[in-house]
Amino acid sequence: MPTPPSIAWKGDALEILDQTLLPQSVCVLRLATLEEAFEAIQRLRVRGAPLIGITAAYGLYLGMRHLTLESEAAFFAALQTQVATLATARPTAVNLFWALESIQARLTVESKAGAVNEVHALKRRLLELAIELHEDDRQRCDAMAEHGQDVIPHGARILTHCNTGFLATGGIGTALGVIHRAHTLGKQVHVYADETRPVLQGARLTIWECAQSGIPATLICDNMAAALMREGKVDLVIVGADRITADGSAANKIGTYGVAVLARHHGIPFYVAAPISTFDLAATHGSQIPIENRDPDEVRRVFGQTLITVPDADCWNPAFDVTPPELITGMITERGIVNAPYVESIAALAK
Amino acid sequence: MPTPPSIAWKGDALEILDQTLLPQSVCVLRLATLEEAFEAIQRLRVRGAPLIGITAAYGLYLGMRHLTLESEAAFFAALQTQVATLATARPTAVNLFWALESIQARLTVESKAGAVNEVHALKRRLLELAIELHEDDRQRCDAMAEHGQDVIPHGARILTHCNTGFLATGGIGTALGVIHRAHTLGKQVHVYADETRPVLQGARLTIWECAQSGIPATLICDNMAAALMREGKVDLVIVGADRITADGSAANKIGTYGVAVLARHHGIPFYVAAPISTFDLAATHGSQIPIENRDPDEVRRVFGQTLITVPDADCWNPAFDVTPPELITGMITERGIVNAPYVESIAALAK
Repeated sequence: MPTPPSIAWKGDALEILDQTLLPQSVCVLRLATLEEAFEAIQRLRVRGAPLIGITAAYGLYLGMRHLTLESEAAFFAALQTQVATLATARPTAVNLFWALESIQARLTVESKAGAVNEVHALKRRLLELAIELHEDDRQRCDAMAEHGQDVIPHGARILTHCNTGFLATGGIGTALGVIHRAHTLGKQVHVYADETRPVLQGARLTIWECAQSGIPATLICDNMAAALMREGKVDLVIVGADRITADGSAANKIGTYGVAVLARHHGIPFYVAAPISTFDLAATHGSQIPIENRDPDEVRRVFGQTLITVPDADCWNPAFDVTPPELITGMITERGIVNAPYVESIAALAK
Repeated sequence: MPTPPSIAWKGDALEILDQTLLPQSVCVLRLATLEEAFEAIQRLRVRGAPLIGITAAYGLYLGMRHLTLESEAAFFAALQTQVATLATARPTAVNLFWALESIQARLTVESKAGAVNEVHALKRRLLELAIELHEDDRQRCDAMAEHGQDVIPHGARILTHCNTGFLATGGIGTALGVIHRAHTLGKQVHVYADETRPVLQGARLTIWECAQSGIPATLICDNMAAALMREGKVDLVIVGADRITADGSAANKIGTYGVAVLARHHGIPFYVAAPISTFDLAATHGSQIPIENRDPDEVRRVFGQTLITVPDADCWNPAFDVTPPELITGMITERGIVNAPYVESIAALAK
């Protein structure tokens, strides 16, 4: 993995690559407080569903570590408040809530069992759990990359959307991790990266990651994917996900659903790669996923600066869309690839 | 129509709106030579299939008017050279060739019939024919706008791609002209404009035109069209065309084909509005249309400046794609709306 990593715990603070500045500047940002972690998530300095979860986990420790708390009860009350705050940073990626809730739940169980008490021990344990979650994500990425090889033939030309590599996770990535592994296995794959307007994660991050890793890649504008498929240049599509519901509906970066429709029209397999932490089994249908609507200036201006339309243009700017299960050929998870019928296969996966 | 017009003959030179500077600057450029007209077409200062044809027609006169030519034969030899030069400005829009060839053919016929001879008279006639072609396009736009009303219900929410209004033609436009007429008829239409990467004609030109004309419009990134359709917010799609072959395949701005696939998937009617000068009956299949591949820096940089990826990113940048006839609900022309089977209906149209 090229330097520096997307996220690293440095003993007393969290270091992240500021992804809003890539690829022009490779700038490491030091986060020492919950507020800084919150801002980094909200402003997309860190993004990608798994990485958002990891950042929130560390952010929770950053928010708790210096609090003066007289009792365990005070600790858990404060923890609840901090969890609630961090949970509002972004609405769609379920990994954020999953990370916060799983750490909170684990700590509660351990405390009740008497394994951890005293406030300073609880604080230390909070950090350990964040580090564990981070390491756990790295391993999940590796497992996904391994399972994903089953669907990648030698010489495959793979279209992807948004960024799902080491910049989006604690490991080598989800969809791009699978591609990365295929590359290192010598499969001679070629990536086509949608630029992914409005925030341009494909142009800025995926193309940069591929260059760092030596993976041959071609950048296209989002609206070129259809013509590329019609010319027979795409063998399969792999994308990530921000939340997958029990029926197999997958929320992912805006534009993913359109790519899925195009893939179906051209008879091209369409895969979603996501760890089990991205599955939200409490939601039974894609329509239950809250979709974040972001500032219209993301559409009006490139990088918040270059104005591309009239200054007061009315814009629609949903950050995500939902791809229904019938357009998804398979889902690559750390426990293997699941296929339709998704209600059954996803339920089995979660057991 | 708001000031200034996209193109105007000023007695001794051609004035155009420099569309590369819109909407930030409304700047009129004076073209006095063939070379300047050529550059304006090639650099997209004027664009849109009909407007390219009109500019080329005036450009032909600009190229001929000051030449010292001793005979009619010398005039026609020089004319042939200038036609050949202008014809290389851009490859896809057939209106360019149509305009040049129809003027050349008309002048040849008139000369042979003895209606025009002497070099100065031929030159004057060249200008008259350019002005006639310009006026003719205005009338064709009006007729298309009229016929197009048959497919626009009251309150229609219409998705369009690229720019096809008064900035793209000598009149009120093709696809956007139909929408403009619906607006002036009080139909309370709403436009959704794809931003149309990489050159952003939708964001820069369509949104600006709609603002000038008071047509309610919302800007979306190209990759949002699918989600918009899925939300039931699009009643129909209307786009323009740069070349339509005898079988009904329509070349238009890159991204159009994808919109057509999405419209079909969602059961939304998809119309192409184009004058008969856009039909290329010598070509029998869409695969025969030459597709212009433009500078990769159009993809890498916004407005040739703001870099959005790594500087040497490999890019694919076709300026057009081809929508097959089976995805087109109907074609709005100045002689009425034609439907499938297109081989027959287009042949009848051309008679």
